[in-house]
Amino acid sequence: MRKNKSKYEIFREKIKIILYGTNTILGRMFDLVLLGLILLSVLLVMLDTVEGINHKYHHQLLVCEWIITAFFTLEYILRIIAIQKPVKYVFSFYGIIDLMAILPMYLSIFFPATNVLTIVRVLRFFRLFKILHIPQISHQSYQLKEALQASKEKILVFIYFVVISAVIIGALMYVVEGKESGFTSIPVSIYWAVVTLTTVGYGDISPITPLGQFLASLVMIMGYGIIAVPTGIVTAEFAKASLRNSSVSGKRTCSQCKAQLHFDNAKYCYQCGKTLPNN
Amino acid sequence: MRKNKSKYEIFREKIKIILYGTNTILGRMFDLVLLGLILLSVLLVMLDTVEGINHKYHHQLLVCEWIITAFFTLEYILRIIAIQKPVKYVFSFYGIIDLMAILPMYLSIFFPATNVLTIVRVLRFFRLFKILHIPQISHQSYQLKEALQASKEKILVFIYFVVISAVIIGALMYVVEGKESGFTSIPVSIYWAVVTLTTVGYGDISPITPLGQFLASLVMIMGYGIIAVPTGIVTAEFAKASLRNSSVSGKRTCSQCKAQLHFDNAKYCYQCGKTLPNN
Amino acid sequence: MRKNKSKYEIFREKIKIILYGTNTILGRMFDLVLLGLILLSVLLVMLDTVEGINHKYHHQLLVCEWIITAFFTLEYILRIIAIQKPVKYVFSFYGIIDLMAILPMYLSIFFPATNVLTIVRVLRFFRLFKILHIPQISHQSYQLKEALQASKEKILVFIYFVVISAVIIGALMYVVEGKESGFTSIPVSIYWAVVTLTTVGYGDISPITPLGQFLASLVMIMGYGIIAVPTGIVTAEFAKASLRNSSVSGKRTCSQCKAQLHFDNAKYCYQCGKTLPNN
Amino acid sequence: MRKNKSKYEIFREKIKIILYGTNTILGRMFDLVLLGLILLSVLLVMLDTVEGINHKYHHQLLVCEWIITAFFTLEYILRIIAIQKPVKYVFSFYGIIDLMAILPMYLSIFFPATNVLTIVRVLRFFRLFKILHIPQISHQSYQLKEALQASKEKILVFIYFVVISAVIIGALMYVVEGKESGFTSIPVSIYWAVVTLTTVGYGDISPITPLGQFLASLVMIMGYGIIAVPTGIVTAEFAKASLRNSSVSGKRTCSQCKAQLHFDNAKYCYQCGKTLPNN
Repeated sequence: MRKNKSKYEIFREKIKIILYGTNTILGRMFDLVLLGLILLSVLLVMLDTVEGINHKYHHQLLVCEWIITAFFTLEYILRIIAIQKPVKYVFSFYGIIDLMAILPMYLSIFFPATNVLTIVRVLRFFRLFKILHIPQISHQSYQLKEALQASKEKILVFIYFVVISAVIIGALMYVVEGKESGFTSIPVSIYWAVVTLTTVGYGDISPITPLGQFLASLVMIMGYGIIAVPTGIVTAEFAKASLRNSSVSGKRTCSQCKAQLHFDNAKYCYQCGKTLPNN
Repeated sequence: MRKNKSKYEIFREKIKIILYGTNTILGRMFDLVLLGLILLSVLLVMLDTVEGINHKYHHQLLVCEWIITAFFTLEYILRIIAIQKPVKYVFSFYGIIDLMAILPMYLSIFFPATNVLTIVRVLRFFRLFKILHIPQISHQSYQLKEALQASKEKILVFIYFVVISAVIIGALMYVVEGKESGFTSIPVSIYWAVVTLTTVGYGDISPITPLGQFLASLVMIMGYGIIAVPTGIVTAEFAKASLRNSSVSGKRTCSQCKAQLHFDNAKYCYQCGKTLPNN
Repeated sequence: MRKNKSKYEIFREKIKIILYGTNTILGRMFDLVLLGLILLSVLLVMLDTVEGINHKYHHQLLVCEWIITAFFTLEYILRIIAIQKPVKYVFSFYGIIDLMAILPMYLSIFFPATNVLTIVRVLRFFRLFKILHIPQISHQSYQLKEALQASKEKILVFIYFVVISAVIIGALMYVVEGKESGFTSIPVSIYWAVVTLTTVGYGDISPITPLGQFLASLVMIMGYGIIAVPTGIVTAEFAKASLRNSSVSGKRTCSQCKAQLHFDNAKYCYQCGKTLPNN
Repeated sequence: MRKNKSKYEIFREKIKIILYGTNTILGRMFDLVLLGLILLSVLLVMLDTVEGINHKYHHQLLVCEWIITAFFTLEYILRIIAIQKPVKYVFSFYGIIDLMAILPMYLSIFFPATNVLTIVRVLRFFRLFKILHIPQISHQSYQLKEALQASKEKILVFIYFVVISAVIIGALMYVVEGKESGFTSIPVSIYWAVVTLTTVGYGDISPITPLGQFLASLVMIMGYGIIAVPTGIVTAEFAKASLRNSSVSGKRTCSQCKAQLHFDNAKYCYQCGKTLPNN
């Protein structure tokens, strides 16, 4: 009995190395196969919605999808077996996404309604975020994340102003332009204001009265000056981070006053004068 | 008589704390309720303009709006009672906005004309700016304001150039394209020029003659280079402000080791640990 | 005879002060009146092209324009009288523009053709640039000009790349999309490429084939990354200029080696070691 | 025999100087003629696709193109003769492009199919990149290239996020909007998402349901904040490069006065005038 269990243990170990490890050849190959299958499965869902392709190759697409689902199901089961705390994995973010990737196909047997199915299927796309855990990308995305984190509050305040501006401009344009120009309600006018302020400019709704066009021009020029603000915030953050790396770093902490931002060649804490640890 | 007045005084004090204070629990709760009601009232005005909703729920929307108006009226009266200088409040920016928030409903009894009413109602949106006085947002918006203030003049000169460019380009395109392409008058052509220079590009008016399309291409490429200018101005300002806060200057010299590159907030020389002279 | 000439001299002096001086009250008032009349005349030309207004108020507009033209003519004659070298003024940039501002009306007596007239009239707009010589605006516009000057070469190279990209993308899309989608010729396709790369996006021409939409998506994402380049160039220039002002200035030149960029607190030339002149 | 070969050698030398050299007058003149002919040939291909011009001047365009092709053929042959390693040139990037510039015309004798021909002709545009080797442009484009190189990885990660976002948003909008609004399939919806996120906004497809318009507004505001990221990355890189060139570092200390803040290219201490240690 013990021997048998040990065999199972070895089997679990092996699966764990393949599924979670990235250092072994098998582990890497598995990651690449998984990446390919996720991309393929996303492609299949996409092609399935194209009228022409769906009519011709519906059967082939369905077979492919069942094969991928089978592979994902196997992977899901093996992951539960291999991991130490299966319950934690099942209810974790990636655990739920992994389940989401296989559920729609099984549900499609019982609920043939296309619309509900597609909504759930869409969630499979989130699996793509798993690829982010490939180390090369992770490093760069970490730096991006950090800079965005630092300017998060300023950007939120900025978006808050944009939203309020959009509401006020939208309401104003609704009154000025009226229903004939497509500004049928204030929510629609706010939608127009967002389309204009962000310089997207679909043109599905556009002012036709002289006053409306004049106000829209003002809004656009305002938006022109406004677009500089988030750019300025993020850029200043990037520049600071990139300059900080070159001469000042936060790697050393003063043992006395806990001050952190020291020059790379500093010997003494600038705040309390205590000797700093070596770099 | 004195006792009675004292009671009234206590009542006024209490109202003042609730309405103007943000430190007590009641004051904060009042702020949150007010915030919610403003947002709700804005939502109601918005939904009221949507055809489908207006037909079905006109009565319910009206009742809600009267309740909110009653609350705002009570708040307005209490604010006048509680404040030291009621006249100053009534004629202040926020005093007028507070009045604007309640007037339209009372005016609607006498003037049932929808259009006039909606215009005045729109002004209620400005009440939203009161929320800006919540401290967390105020701090960040202050920094944004400061950076914009510093680059205000440069941005004004820039907008001035954009407006002149739009006028000249608009007039040129009016002559080149003519009435058939939608460039029906110079003001409309200027509107097109603003739409193009700001990269909004609705497409409600667009050049159709080869010469017009060629000129439009030049304008767009010019606008492409131009959009960099306000961004550059604001970013440089942000970068300066952000560097200033954690900045390094060569103005102070350590009296012992002559090291010069100190943080502005440094108290001790980073090289020899000696106390630095004040800034 | 001498006395008479002296009177004429005094008259010339007075006109010169009014027309060219900005320090006296009369000179300033004249500038403001001129500014107002230029703006009014631009407004008149604009309104004249609006169908509705032209029909109703054609006569009034014509009278106004003749009054303004009379004033501009008087000003032009006085300028020639007052200035030292009238020939130089007449053939200078602003001299020609001043003539352009009055010529169209006189020409309209002989050539009643509307189109030719409008083209020449358009040139009157250039008079607006005279306002730029108001000192407050001049200072800021000088700084903007300097920063643009410094990044001029880089922006030209960048625009050169954008133009080549537009040509290649345009030709490619012409082949891919064909005449049915509105890509009727390569020049039109290049126009589309410019509209897309600059994120204007009118939508008068847009890809409809799957391959065309895929290529267009690639172009847009590329353009997304590309828009950062001119912004980056100008911003870096602004940041440099703004940082340079704070601690390093080009105001002092070493008498020996002609090096210019010294610290504000520098006593010796960093290049040749010679004593620098005081700030 | 030897003399004859020497004559050929001299002829080869002369051709080499004309074709590859840029320092002699003949070499420069040849470069200018080549530049003009490339631009002319590109213009001819462009005009050939314009219906009206093609009908009228088809014959003249054809003659011009044959003359240019003859010149390019001669140039191609001379290049092969003049160069040391002709095989290496033929299979190099510019060798293939030079061949591409002449092949289409000769192929057009055998394959009169317009479409195939146009595709190959398009490749002639790539010859334009040869002009980049003019030194003035090369220098600036090198700097641009370097800055883009340095921020390449960050921009790739950023584009990766944009693509994933576009896929998820596209799928979501396909489900929300459905086929009636033009969101006919997920690939088309992704195309819409890219058009929106990059703020191009053609308007060929745009949301019409309230929920779709609300989601689109969120996407646009998100895209508004996102556009700041590549700009920030590139700008920080430019700023770093531009500061590095005229930069100040605290790495060198004057042996006499202990001053530290020297320009990287400084030879003498700005404070006491003593020679500085090398970098």
